[in-house]
Amino acid sequence: MTIATPLVIAVLGTGPVGRALAGRLGSLGHDVRLGTRDPAATGRREEHRTWHEEHAEVTVATFAEAATDADVVVNACGGEVTLEVLDQVGAELLDGVVLVDVSNPLDFSAGFPPRLSVCNDDSLGEQVQHAFPGARVVKTLNTMNSAVMVDPARLGASASVFVSGDDPDAKAVVARLLREMGHDDVIDLGGITSARGVEMFLPLWLRLAGALGSSEVGIAVVRP
Amino acid sequence: MTIATPLVIAVLGTGPVGRALAGRLGSLGHDVRLGTRDPAATGRREEHRTWHEEHAEVTVATFAEAATDADVVVNACGGEVTLEVLDQVGAELLDGVVLVDVSNPLDFSAGFPPRLSVCNDDSLGEQVQHAFPGARVVKTLNTMNSAVMVDPARLGASASVFVSGDDPDAKAVVARLLREMGHDDVIDLGGITSARGVEMFLPLWLRLAGALGSSEVGIAVVRP
Repeated sequence: MTIATPLVIAVLGTGPVGRALAGRLGSLGHDVRLGTRDPAATGRREEHRTWHEEHAEVTVATFAEAATDADVVVNACGGEVTLEVLDQVGAELLDGVVLVDVSNPLDFSAGFPPRLSVCNDDSLGEQVQHAFPGARVVKTLNTMNSAVMVDPARLGASASVFVSGDDPDAKAVVARLLREMGHDDVIDLGGITSARGVEMFLPLWLRLAGALGSSEVGIAVVRP
Repeated sequence: MTIATPLVIAVLGTGPVGRALAGRLGSLGHDVRLGTRDPAATGRREEHRTWHEEHAEVTVATFAEAATDADVVVNACGGEVTLEVLDQVGAELLDGVVLVDVSNPLDFSAGFPPRLSVCNDDSLGEQVQHAFPGARVVKTLNTMNSAVMVDPARLGASASVFVSGDDPDAKAVVARLLREMGHDDVIDLGGITSARGVEMFLPLWLRLAGALGSSEVGIAVVRP
């Protein structure tokens, strides 16, 4: 696929979600930096090194270095550390940036399945927007696992992906990136408060993955 | 479609959901009673009379009369009155019965979209099972509107429907009824605690219906 205009994208978080998104967006031709707490420590991890050999085009840096001059910052950290990691980046670097939040506020302290640490009257997406009012927050991709995020065709049939956010231009940028990654049913749910909907879907997703014995599961919105 | 064995089914609630389910199950050949608080008052309502003319095979009775000797009791009342209505039926009549709960714990007191009155650590399905331990509770159908419940083909593509409950035989009875109504992807999510998943899906469903401008919307679970 040809990229009309490559973007500078910082992906924060070096777990499976961060690696999958950074690798895929880098392969598509974007200028991708992978942000981590301690680049030296990350560089010593075997799974990171194996991944980085295949994605040498991705730069590894601290959270703040990765986000410097980025067009798009992707929060691929766990929900429990999201606000702290974004604090490390700082409000100044996030001002005006398209801030893509793919995290889920999962609380495993009482075992599996996890409960949500925030829901019903608030959401993590809203908390991120509230903490960083200058950022243009878009919640998306939290309704599927990392393999499906970057290769939705692996499900064998078209699944849907949702975007929630208060800034239409930011949602358009994110929708373009989603389509580049293969998502052909991008549904705009409305403002950032609609992040409550996609985050509260997680308990159903977790039960589905358990019932079907696989996290390779998505949902397609069916309408006439 | 030929019904192997007609069941005696009480549908509690004379709103759109109760009318749709009672009418459809009656058309399929089951012995259906529609339960209401005050049969005389219900009989005076124009929308009920119009509906009953087309479904004369359905008996209208009080909640308790409808549930007497029923194989299956369907709670099609609003979430806010569910436990009170089932109290009117009483634990004795519900003992051993397949109790199908299609309600959602929606709280509209703060406007639209509603919040959930229970979620995350509990669900209305679990509260029903806890209040009536002798009933064999199955949560299902709460993830779609009444028209789609009884005619899923109207969506133009196959959507999925979920069953949650602790009694496998009760879930098998419900799965049979769902298939008779046209549902061809019935997914068993596990025990009644999985009702949390399908009830917490409602905030996403409400946002989807708003974004798409229609409540004629379902979800299909996509897996390889």
